[in-house]
Amino acid sequence: MAKEVTKRSDNYSQWYNDLVVKADLAEQSAVRGCMVIKPYGYAIWEKMQRILDDMFKETGAKNAYFPLFIPKSFFSREAEHVAGFAKECAVVTHHRLMNDPNGNGIVVDPSARLEEELIVRPTSETIIWNTYKNWIHSWRDLPVMCNQWCNVVRWEMRTRLFLRTAEFLWQEGHTAHATAEEAEAEKQRMVEVYAKFARETMALPVVVGHKSPGERFAGALDTMTIEALMQDGKALQAGTSHFLGQNFAKSFDVTFTNKEGKDEYVWATSWGVSTRLMGALIMAHGDDNGLVLPPALAPIQVVMVPIYKSDEEHNAVLDKMYQLKKALEAKGHSVHIDDRDTLRPGFKFAEWELKGVPVRLAMGPRDIQNGTVEVARRDTLEKISEPLEGLEDRIIDLLDDIQKNIYNKALAFRDASIRKVDTWEEFKEEIEKGGFLLCHWDGTAETEARIQEETKATIRCIPVDSAVCMEEGKCIYTGKPSHQRVLFARSY
Amino acid sequence: MAKEVTKRSDNYSQWYNDLVVKADLAEQSAVRGCMVIKPYGYAIWEKMQRILDDMFKETGAKNAYFPLFIPKSFFSREAEHVAGFAKECAVVTHHRLMNDPNGNGIVVDPSARLEEELIVRPTSETIIWNTYKNWIHSWRDLPVMCNQWCNVVRWEMRTRLFLRTAEFLWQEGHTAHATAEEAEAEKQRMVEVYAKFARETMALPVVVGHKSPGERFAGALDTMTIEALMQDGKALQAGTSHFLGQNFAKSFDVTFTNKEGKDEYVWATSWGVSTRLMGALIMAHGDDNGLVLPPALAPIQVVMVPIYKSDEEHNAVLDKMYQLKKALEAKGHSVHIDDRDTLRPGFKFAEWELKGVPVRLAMGPRDIQNGTVEVARRDTLEKISEPLEGLEDRIIDLLDDIQKNIYNKALAFRDASIRKVDTWEEFKEEIEKGGFLLCHWDGTAETEARIQEETKATIRCIPVDSAVCMEEGKCIYTGKPSHQRVLFARSY
Repeated sequence: MAKEVTKRSDNYSQWYNDLVVKADLAEQSAVRGCMVIKPYGYAIWEKMQRILDDMFKETGAKNAYFPLFIPKSFFSREAEHVAGFAKECAVVTHHRLMNDPNGNGIVVDPSARLEEELIVRPTSETIIWNTYKNWIHSWRDLPVMCNQWCNVVRWEMRTRLFLRTAEFLWQEGHTAHATAEEAEAEKQRMVEVYAKFARETMALPVVVGHKSPGERFAGALDTMTIEALMQDGKALQAGTSHFLGQNFAKSFDVTFTNKEGKDEYVWATSWGVSTRLMGALIMAHGDDNGLVLPPALAPIQVVMVPIYKSDEEHNAVLDKMYQLKKALEAKGHSVHIDDRDTLRPGFKFAEWELKGVPVRLAMGPRDIQNGTVEVARRDTLEKISEPLEGLEDRIIDLLDDIQKNIYNKALAFRDASIRKVDTWEEFKEEIEKGGFLLCHWDGTAETEARIQEETKATIRCIPVDSAVCMEEGKCIYTGKPSHQRVLFARSY
Repeated sequence: MAKEVTKRSDNYSQWYNDLVVKADLAEQSAVRGCMVIKPYGYAIWEKMQRILDDMFKETGAKNAYFPLFIPKSFFSREAEHVAGFAKECAVVTHHRLMNDPNGNGIVVDPSARLEEELIVRPTSETIIWNTYKNWIHSWRDLPVMCNQWCNVVRWEMRTRLFLRTAEFLWQEGHTAHATAEEAEAEKQRMVEVYAKFARETMALPVVVGHKSPGERFAGALDTMTIEALMQDGKALQAGTSHFLGQNFAKSFDVTFTNKEGKDEYVWATSWGVSTRLMGALIMAHGDDNGLVLPPALAPIQVVMVPIYKSDEEHNAVLDKMYQLKKALEAKGHSVHIDDRDTLRPGFKFAEWELKGVPVRLAMGPRDIQNGTVEVARRDTLEKISEPLEGLEDRIIDLLDDIQKNIYNKALAFRDASIRKVDTWEEFKEEIEKGGFLLCHWDGTAETEARIQEETKATIRCIPVDSAVCMEEGKCIYTGKPSHQRVLFARSY
């Protein structure tokens, strides 16, 4: 084996870290809490971006770019927002360095202090709504639907690659509407875009729902979320879409003249997903041999490893491989031939398994003679010998099948992990086993906080479209009446 | 007219600003020197990104992401680099805000001071080479060819939208090679990629050459550049590619074991273009009516304006337009039907002219009767009536023709602006008229500085592949012998 990966059963957290680092996805940088996203990891993120971006544009959103820096005073404008975001963040106070007059290298020039400190954006609602003020005057200017792909910084104390880093990459959509109904519809549309992307592209069977008031985004009237389940039984919030009401419009004085000639405040949403999705992808599907990438996101979908002794054999095998590569690429698939002559085939097999490539083909002189090739699928680790004849179509079918199988496996795991729990004793026992618990809750923030304190479990969401939740019952903690079950779990 | 644009002859600088702001490309933000790139401007930048990104990948480069912040000490490592970049930059000194105990809003928490200040990257050589140290051990690890699309910050005192902003967007490629020859070839390959992109996509007839030692990138042994000529006769550096020798490898101790088992320092290049290209695009092609966008970069290539009185006429015209739109979109062209019912056609014509849309179609009831459409091309402002029959193919040809015409017009302007100048008196006179002056120079930094002091002109580049430059002569300033003419101009 090229690189040893910790077993999930031995140390799940170390297994995750091994996958991120040893599969060349990302690594820690010299700057506390900031990661380097390596080319192989970034290629996956790029695929996510491309697919999501097309989906956003399909809804009418357009990309734009707003400043990295936010004047400190902006954070004071929206009262709840400031409590949520203006704490741990990177503060720019000076704009010049100089040579130390005492010869101690480079120092901050004390005379270059900014009049007002600038905050590196932790999220951009404030600077964007301050801009929208100039864009929006009449009902004709609405809706405004901007998205930006950018970096943001939140000074997290405990960081983990992709899951929680001081700097991360994300997209943030910010929309402005004439009515509450339109804004609510946009919030709903975007959480559905995220759910579709998670299910179809990432093979993640997410649960869609509303956050409880206590878990809402700072400044939101409603936060919708997609919640994914990781293999260790913990939940991961994979994307959120917020209905912000008129809070930001009021804070930044953004009004429009409606068709009747009256001035009204604008209604807002925001929605985002981040490089955290990379963490979800790794933890939902990986196994003890490494990553398992859904074909829709795999930078390399098919890898081919030639096996040979003589130059003649080498050439014969490569010939066939290049033919097949060309045929698959013509159909839009990404193929890599691993022809490195300094490594043995077994080493290469392990490396591409670690990197999660969905399909691996190996071909040697005997295969050439027999007109066959060895096909290994990453998700099940099965290997079979296939005739070369008509292979490209079968590989395309196989990629489809792998995409579906990865989803179905995750779905089966999730469904087996959802349990209805009706008593507090049972809850405390079951939460230790991980997974999603569907329970009645009395709807108060106090009960929610108590449950979290005692068990570290939080309400992941109040599921929508789930007939199974809509029933009368009693709160597991207080016994007070409840009209709907909600989803509890421990989470990342 | 919708929005008045200043004439170039009245005030070129105000004309530029009018185009940027009134064509909805970008605007100043609340943060000094930082711009907001609006959706229409960002759509052009996205097209640039997509095309360049494909070209980079074609050369073998891969995208990655490195931290926004650079520890202050990194800037002290490469002596020349520090002088060039560690001056005007954004310095992060704290990581927390808090409520002022005296009730004066939000203040920086004095207890959250960073041990070492962090600099918001003005360019990433230092942090990237610090990372490459861990990636590169053997000749098998080389070359490493990473590119990143990101934001950078240089605290410029005088800013102009796109041309010089405190924060801007760019791409920076950073490559590591086993030999000087390979690194030089990469530097050369990338400046050629930029030149090809400038010529074929941006319709900019750039001059390729080497920077004089005094104009090189901080830390580079050679800087190659593409230089474009703006309509006011000033040059604009549109992209650079640097051969960095072993400077960064030595500063960050990046060595590899060669095939003979000996340790050597790695050879480096870096190369980049930025949102400055937007400024070049605007100034090279725009006219007094607004932007003139080359079809290859126009977010909307064809705009259609319906003309009607009755609903019946409206429907008949729209029917035809949707048919045509579908046919053009099927061939990969972007089409917009401007069906806003609150604006007159004349207003719409002016607006799309301002926004530089290459082709405008207008169609009214009489056109329907006659089977015709009015076709207006933005570059020449010509209008002709065309039969509807077979129109889509002729529009595709027209877009091609416009792309070429915009380039040829810029080329003719540039060629007419290049003059050989052989005396100092003539130089001082000619430089006032703008354009590129091809002159002999004695090769010293001192002469270069003097010429700049006296005339504000700099050596834009020492052109390559230019037979016209390769001749013996005497320096225009000192009269000392010279073996090649170089290109002088005033510049942005």
